[in-house]
Amino acid sequence: MQERVDKRNPKIVVVGGGTGVFTVLSGLRKYPVELSAIVSMADDGGSTGVLREEFGILPPGDVRRVLVAMSHSERLLSDLFNYRFEEGGLRGHTFGNIMLTALERLTGSFEEAVDEAAKILRVKGRVFPVTLDNVRLCAELEDGTLVRGETNIDIPRHDGFLKIARIWLEPEAKLNTKAESAIKNADMIIVGPGDLYTSIVPNLLVRGMPEALKNSSSKKVYVVNLMTKWGETNGFTAADFLSTLEKYLGKNVLNCIVINNKRPSLVRTKQYEKENAKFIEAGNLPSKPVPVFGDYLRSRGFVRHDPDKLAKILVSLI
Amino acid sequence: MQERVDKRNPKIVVVGGGTGVFTVLSGLRKYPVELSAIVSMADDGGSTGVLREEFGILPPGDVRRVLVAMSHSERLLSDLFNYRFEEGGLRGHTFGNIMLTALERLTGSFEEAVDEAAKILRVKGRVFPVTLDNVRLCAELEDGTLVRGETNIDIPRHDGFLKIARIWLEPEAKLNTKAESAIKNADMIIVGPGDLYTSIVPNLLVRGMPEALKNSSSKKVYVVNLMTKWGETNGFTAADFLSTLEKYLGKNVLNCIVINNKRPSLVRTKQYEKENAKFIEAGNLPSKPVPVFGDYLRSRGFVRHDPDKLAKILVSLI
Repeated sequence: MQERVDKRNPKIVVVGGGTGVFTVLSGLRKYPVELSAIVSMADDGGSTGVLREEFGILPPGDVRRVLVAMSHSERLLSDLFNYRFEEGGLRGHTFGNIMLTALERLTGSFEEAVDEAAKILRVKGRVFPVTLDNVRLCAELEDGTLVRGETNIDIPRHDGFLKIARIWLEPEAKLNTKAESAIKNADMIIVGPGDLYTSIVPNLLVRGMPEALKNSSSKKVYVVNLMTKWGETNGFTAADFLSTLEKYLGKNVLNCIVINNKRPSLVRTKQYEKENAKFIEAGNLPSKPVPVFGDYLRSRGFVRHDPDKLAKILVSLI
Repeated sequence: MQERVDKRNPKIVVVGGGTGVFTVLSGLRKYPVELSAIVSMADDGGSTGVLREEFGILPPGDVRRVLVAMSHSERLLSDLFNYRFEEGGLRGHTFGNIMLTALERLTGSFEEAVDEAAKILRVKGRVFPVTLDNVRLCAELEDGTLVRGETNIDIPRHDGFLKIARIWLEPEAKLNTKAESAIKNADMIIVGPGDLYTSIVPNLLVRGMPEALKNSSSKKVYVVNLMTKWGETNGFTAADFLSTLEKYLGKNVLNCIVINNKRPSLVRTKQYEKENAKFIEAGNLPSKPVPVFGDYLRSRGFVRHDPDKLAKILVSLI
């Protein structure tokens, strides 16, 4: 009699916020893996900020992007979810944010709203807000200036050359138990890419999150960004990204760090000059986590990760 | 060899606007019939009015109600479609109206937007705007006063005791060819119930609509309202409703007129007094169309048609 082998698909958990998670998920969805996404709840800008202010709901923007990345519905439905109104009183709102807001009101919970939106969009995988607590991101700059609100850090009102000394959430937030359980059962956890202080670290500021990551027996991979960000990571090398991340996560938690070493053409980086954004060099990296260098760059357009190149290396690391 | 009999389900077309069409469709959807709805495009009040004004789109409100009536999706999706925001900049808008607006922008056509929304809501049946032209409803009162805009007739700014002398659309509108074809192929066409001047007759004001109804070989039934409406049909009997309708439709087109003769309790009509609305008496009806009297009243609550009682008599008339 042949023994039945449990050939279940590997469970991958992607942690982040913003467009970085979208890129990772868009690539990984083509593989036979079980995907979950844990999404930062710090966003308070744009349409999301207005809806938080007016409805007191958790931020829908990052959840919306992740849902679209994992949607298996028709293209039109994804386009609809991302559609941004340009006229009248709805100007600036995306349809998906409005839908998550209405679902939150109908179901009485943001978590259920996310689940219901996932059903409508035929999402394969799970999406978890990192916390269900309503929080605000705060930062202290190296000169002692306090900045409140994610959007004021993301689109710096301060002198963007000043370094961020530390960031925290107000009030303290606790880890969503469903996110915790996804981390516990994961085979691989991918952190990033994404804005370090406004998309990635806000996940680690949630009480219980660094411990959950530490205690999970999964492979843990950090994907470093491609370009620095003025007001957040000005002049940072990959080594600086790592040491900042480890300041909040702890040392000896990550197994690998994925670093793109394919330099984009000058024409492509030229447009980033006015934003003071520069291509990220490796810097003085430690031997652990293991650096995984390679060409993970899109072949044209904006300097972004190529979803397929990135997914390929990530899957090989499981 | 047995002859193959075409036992197709009867094709029923419901013509109207407002909540009346919703009632008829909710009852009929339980029968093995092929349903289509032709919806008035005159509405310009509330959320619909704001979206027409800001986006220049056709009115979504009545289409939304009809889509929900024919939806076979989960209850939550219908509730979502009808959800009305109560806070902030979205206040007063229904989610379904916002969705139809976004779909119109994405697809570039209101007709396609309706079709796509129908797919999302798993609508069984078809929904056709009576016209794809952007029109405004106008009325002249018996004293010569001109009223522009459906909502100004619906929620009268004028002396509600004044009769409406005539109504028309500006500019002239032509019949949606898909609505025309549904009428041509129908086995039964049901007109009403609904606000006479603001939901029903606006369909007949579209060029080609009365002719299409005349030329269709289907059974044609008019369902009269239960209560008069101040500013529109003050003091009207069923006979007055019929003669007004026939003024726009033509004589000898309708086969039957369905009239409720079950009088609601005084407790139930009491709340209508402040709106100057009265229970509609039969009045001096002609022998044709054939009057079909009966108890079509909901057993409690607002004085409305009971969807099941109404559907039962309508199906028996095919």
